[in-house]
Amino acid sequence: MVSPINPMLKEPLPEKDSTAGIERPLALLKHIPEDPVPLLGLANHSIVSARQFSHEQIVQLCRLAAKHEAVPVQTRRPLVGKILISAFYEPSTRTRLSFESAWHRLGGDIMSITDPATTGIAKGESLFDVAEMLNNYGDLVVLRESSNDAIYEMLKALRIPIVNAGNGTDEHPTQALADIYTMFKWRPELMDEHVAEGHRAKIGVIGVPSRMRTVRSLLYLLSLFPRSFEEVVIFCGEDEVFAKNQRENLKELGLNLRVSTELNKELPNLDIVYINSIAWVGDSYEELGKEFKLSAASPLKKGAIVMHPLARGDELATDLDDTPHNWYFAQARSAVFIRMALLTCLVQLNW
Amino acid sequence: MVSPINPMLKEPLPEKDSTAGIERPLALLKHIPEDPVPLLGLANHSIVSARQFSHEQIVQLCRLAAKHEAVPVQTRRPLVGKILISAFYEPSTRTRLSFESAWHRLGGDIMSITDPATTGIAKGESLFDVAEMLNNYGDLVVLRESSNDAIYEMLKALRIPIVNAGNGTDEHPTQALADIYTMFKWRPELMDEHVAEGHRAKIGVIGVPSRMRTVRSLLYLLSLFPRSFEEVVIFCGEDEVFAKNQRENLKELGLNLRVSTELNKELPNLDIVYINSIAWVGDSYEELGKEFKLSAASPLKKGAIVMHPLARGDELATDLDDTPHNWYFAQARSAVFIRMALLTCLVQLNW
Amino acid sequence: MVSPINPMLKEPLPEKDSTAGIERPLALLKHIPEDPVPLLGLANHSIVSARQFSHEQIVQLCRLAAKHEAVPVQTRRPLVGKILISAFYEPSTRTRLSFESAWHRLGGDIMSITDPATTGIAKGESLFDVAEMLNNYGDLVVLRESSNDAIYEMLKALRIPIVNAGNGTDEHPTQALADIYTMFKWRPELMDEHVAEGHRAKIGVIGVPSRMRTVRSLLYLLSLFPRSFEEVVIFCGEDEVFAKNQRENLKELGLNLRVSTELNKELPNLDIVYINSIAWVGDSYEELGKEFKLSAASPLKKGAIVMHPLARGDELATDLDDTPHNWYFAQARSAVFIRMALLTCLVQLNW
Repeated sequence: MVSPINPMLKEPLPEKDSTAGIERPLALLKHIPEDPVPLLGLANHSIVSARQFSHEQIVQLCRLAAKHEAVPVQTRRPLVGKILISAFYEPSTRTRLSFESAWHRLGGDIMSITDPATTGIAKGESLFDVAEMLNNYGDLVVLRESSNDAIYEMLKALRIPIVNAGNGTDEHPTQALADIYTMFKWRPELMDEHVAEGHRAKIGVIGVPSRMRTVRSLLYLLSLFPRSFEEVVIFCGEDEVFAKNQRENLKELGLNLRVSTELNKELPNLDIVYINSIAWVGDSYEELGKEFKLSAASPLKKGAIVMHPLARGDELATDLDDTPHNWYFAQARSAVFIRMALLTCLVQLNW
Repeated sequence: MVSPINPMLKEPLPEKDSTAGIERPLALLKHIPEDPVPLLGLANHSIVSARQFSHEQIVQLCRLAAKHEAVPVQTRRPLVGKILISAFYEPSTRTRLSFESAWHRLGGDIMSITDPATTGIAKGESLFDVAEMLNNYGDLVVLRESSNDAIYEMLKALRIPIVNAGNGTDEHPTQALADIYTMFKWRPELMDEHVAEGHRAKIGVIGVPSRMRTVRSLLYLLSLFPRSFEEVVIFCGEDEVFAKNQRENLKELGLNLRVSTELNKELPNLDIVYINSIAWVGDSYEELGKEFKLSAASPLKKGAIVMHPLARGDELATDLDDTPHNWYFAQARSAVFIRMALLTCLVQLNW
Repeated sequence: MVSPINPMLKEPLPEKDSTAGIERPLALLKHIPEDPVPLLGLANHSIVSARQFSHEQIVQLCRLAAKHEAVPVQTRRPLVGKILISAFYEPSTRTRLSFESAWHRLGGDIMSITDPATTGIAKGESLFDVAEMLNNYGDLVVLRESSNDAIYEMLKALRIPIVNAGNGTDEHPTQALADIYTMFKWRPELMDEHVAEGHRAKIGVIGVPSRMRTVRSLLYLLSLFPRSFEEVVIFCGEDEVFAKNQRENLKELGLNLRVSTELNKELPNLDIVYINSIAWVGDSYEELGKEFKLSAASPLKKGAIVMHPLARGDELATDLDDTPHNWYFAQARSAVFIRMALLTCLVQLNW
């Protein structure tokens, strides 16, 4: 008798699950009236920090992202003829591919630089000179760099927009956009000016705001919606939780911030749990806060969602994958659509 | 007097030779009546093993490939807006470029991952998680991996098709498609249900079926046409010619298989000689069967064709290049068109 | 009080400067009557040496480049469906990206090979075989290689055009095209058959013609316009300034050539100063002529322009950037448009 073929090869592709369907982006889309004016201010701008966005820009960007996600077949290709320069000098799958996927879905072409050793930088070319060259070769640059300052050095020479895809320990503003868009897909009413008391959200952030760029950028965006996110609890075992002035700034911006080390005691009260345990330092990364772990056994509130912005390690058990708490997969998916929304606004207006 | 310019720079580009012209694919196209039904079954499927194909699917895929090859100017671009994720974790020129060329010729865009060190896998991300991400970023994955099992691990999470471009020592099904398409271009009557006695072909395969993925996949495809390929002679000096159950399976499937070590004695009776001397093992490769060499001095049957699926080494002398036995260049060419045929079927139906 | 945001993030993108505007290419475009006939001779040709071009081809290529540069929005996409194989085996930012940008702006798709270690060459495949493969996968190859001979080896097998993007110490013809196009944008009358005496240009070239491929190719192109460039002064401290026959050939071709080591003494008489201090040797590079430096303190002639074909090092001070002598940024920009012009001519005629 012939050996049987692997049964997996007989199975058809699985259906999309509910967090990956079109219902939720469609609900978000309908929840928000369209207002193109705030987005006009983004045209021909570089995005380096989450602090550059206004409340209204975030709302309209999320609306535009939802439109892209709710209409899977792209009927228009607004970036045909436009070239993205994708410069990732640190290892990355999801950020690079989601930027490139977003650009391609809008019809644009891409040139990648994945290794500084294959560029003029290896011959001692300055970042200023590299940026001056890039002006001529493309229409927008996406940069990931292990240094906090490289992007500012390039800004001095650039006449095309640059988008920060992670600069050292500083910021990762488009990841924060994907994060908050995911939260709004989960509960569109969080975008409202006045959220009723029972509908506000408490967020737990497992991470180190002083050194984790995703956390740093996310806190800025959350501070634009202080009534929606009524409390942010930081879980952090490090000595230096905040960078200089960081906590004071966030407070001033309206964020209700608290630090804790007792994760399991707080979990039953949290609506959103955001876990991050990698901080980039120079060319390498540190694992931090590994004492804070989540699994199906964690005392999560009913209906609470778990988010994770990066490649998962031990800190997030796979036994959560098939529970309704799993919104980290939806979050990765969100990244494509929010980047589509942002990129069209930066490059040209007729989206 | 000025030194003369290199004479090569004066020469126009050479003409296509007869194996690269449109006559043969045109003849194949006319030989087979079109039947789209078998191909419908491929839509939204992953291709991991050559065992997934039926006789009729192979025939219609080869017909579709011939159509692409016979009409050099692609008038339709069915994959516009579709994104290929091209993940090659082993060195490859021809497989990667022929997949990418096929996808581009159909109008699609591509994102490449050539080095696992630049991806989240370097940070310890699981293949399952990587696959879950890829669902959101592209429309189809092509994977080459040195492990046999990685593709099955990814299949568990994927909701977009994946195509196996070589998984360790296991299979390389699209190479086998290119191989059999080449044989059918050479003699279209081999595709017929009932091949007349004098028109059947004897094949010699220089290689190790237990460990060479190209050979493993090819034997599966040949077994779908047992009346056309009346005998398959394996030339192999290894102890472990076949993997467990492999020979029995192939016999059960109808293949008339024999093992020999006397290449030159058998050559005068063989219509097709297929030579492969590299087996991938983990991250590296072994050279096997180097005692079996072919050259213009080999006692090849008049009209016999020589095929070679990989980068050529010493085992295949260049003095065969300008003889009519050289079908290994045509075989490399075939790879683009058969992949065009397969990819359109997997992604969408209106080809 | 909240810490202020980085003021750079408030600034809009700067305007294009005058060397990057459309006025100069527009002036060049109007200066030259269109004549498509010389360009027809380039169709389906490979470009390996600057010696392959005629005077009339250079003039018409520059005119076509100016047309591309003067009309920033590409309304036609003549290379849709065409595939560039971009093979850079040496580090490169500007050459690779400017070729790829040119190809994309014309509507074409690209497959890149940046690392020979990821190709079949790593398995011992010959360049002849690689070239034979490439015939099937793309429509044009751009090759940068540290060996002088690899491109000639590939030419033997190619049936699609190949363009030399730097072959060892030999030539870099498309860089020379960018150089001379820049000079003509600066002074369109230099393209005329008969340039009035006061309008001719004296060029200083800081570099080693025997070993620097950019210099070697540029001198060939200058020799096509001996009345425009009335004198070329080579500044070189090496023993072996010229390769065998090189000086004699250039003289025979009509070039008025002189060697000097006294840069500052000559500078006040030079209209164009071209500085290059890197020579590729095998897989690495040498820095040569570092004793010749340029800065804002150099005794440059009023109105003189400075050009630099490569990644800048110490030899060219940044204090020249904001002076009208800076035409090295304009030169980098020129590279995209002249390559657009060349590539359309090589691949197809209906540009």
